[in-house]
Amino acid sequence: MHKIADVEVQHDIMVANRKLARKNQKILDKDQVFSVDVVGAIGSGKTSLIEALIDAMNYKIGVIAGDVISKYDAGRFEKHNVPVVGLNTGKECHLDAHLVEHALHDMPLEEIDILFIENVGNLICPVDFDLGSHMRMAVISVTEGDDTVEKHPLIFQDSDLVVINKVDLASAVGVDSDKMVNDVKHINPEIQVIKTSLKTGLGFDEVIKAIDLYISGH
Amino acid sequence: MHKIADVEVQHDIMVANRKLARKNQKILDKDQVFSVDVVGAIGSGKTSLIEALIDAMNYKIGVIAGDVISKYDAGRFEKHNVPVVGLNTGKECHLDAHLVEHALHDMPLEEIDILFIENVGNLICPVDFDLGSHMRMAVISVTEGDDTVEKHPLIFQDSDLVVINKVDLASAVGVDSDKMVNDVKHINPEIQVIKTSLKTGLGFDEVIKAIDLYISGH
Repeated sequence: MHKIADVEVQHDIMVANRKLARKNQKILDKDQVFSVDVVGAIGSGKTSLIEALIDAMNYKIGVIAGDVISKYDAGRFEKHNVPVVGLNTGKECHLDAHLVEHALHDMPLEEIDILFIENVGNLICPVDFDLGSHMRMAVISVTEGDDTVEKHPLIFQDSDLVVINKVDLASAVGVDSDKMVNDVKHINPEIQVIKTSLKTGLGFDEVIKAIDLYISGH
Repeated sequence: MHKIADVEVQHDIMVANRKLARKNQKILDKDQVFSVDVVGAIGSGKTSLIEALIDAMNYKIGVIAGDVISKYDAGRFEKHNVPVVGLNTGKECHLDAHLVEHALHDMPLEEIDILFIENVGNLICPVDFDLGSHMRMAVISVTEGDDTVEKHPLIFQDSDLVVINKVDLASAVGVDSDKMVNDVKHINPEIQVIKTSLKTGLGFDEVIKAIDLYISGH
């Protein structure tokens, strides 16, 4: 009995979320803001990658920083002198369109070109929750092990760009980063996959180019 | 309106889960099986740690291997010639007592002393879901960054033993493992925290001792 009620409520939440996501995209489009939902596990390097993009890209950038608890990541972004809204989800393991809608109210959209939305560190929960962004970038790290892609196929089906980060550590953790690339391509043959190391700079320009390409195609 | 229904269903699920967890523990106690719920993020090294414990401990061990999808981890455990039940959660980001109850039916409890239950790779979702195990061990890795503990306090409030793994990589990833220890102690002053590296063997004997102590105190 619980099960049926649960499924029904879950369905209602999904429908409501999709409606709100469409509303969010309209709000963003009104101010010509291109939005990127950044998903990935704990320690994949989402925050550091967004920080590097803020400093390197020729756009005015804003960030919504999602976390279960604490405004730690939001504080890191503020140091780059960009508008930041921190969102705490409490016990929830993903952002949803409703939370993002609230954050959009506090974001000076007329002053920015790109909005990065850093999701909660998780490869499972964000899958079904469209936030209204124009692009989803998944960031994974070789330190997660080279089985992390095949274990979490849904997030890769649903992403537009995949960054395999910290490849400088691949041999130290005994991981084959090519296997990770192949696993992503097997799940989603059309998707662009970029190997990066923020430490050495490898692949970073390619990430910028890939996002630029999405923006110009938008 | 969705919100209220959601909270009510959530409450019902929690009550049902706690009842089933107590039932699971009775089933385990009947056959004198000591059970350890192993939680931690993707790539923290839960599977490798359990594999090493299977080989090193003087107990007959069984494993329930939880994963969103695939029986990859279950396959790894089977190579150690122990009884294994693989549980796929589909889209759910944690095991629950109901899933574990089903797995217990397929586990030859009369033949084992310790049952390791490897939860889905996640530091957020498993918090509220008691599985009926006697002990919860949280495994985190320095590669998750030294802010991972303060970002996920609830899982450490609720664990009995914390393993900080892959400390051999701490300097390569620029992480202060002592900060991680202190953050855990700040959240849960009574808890035992052990730094480990499965590569060098550091701390492994301590983990065995800690589990042994729990078993003898049980």
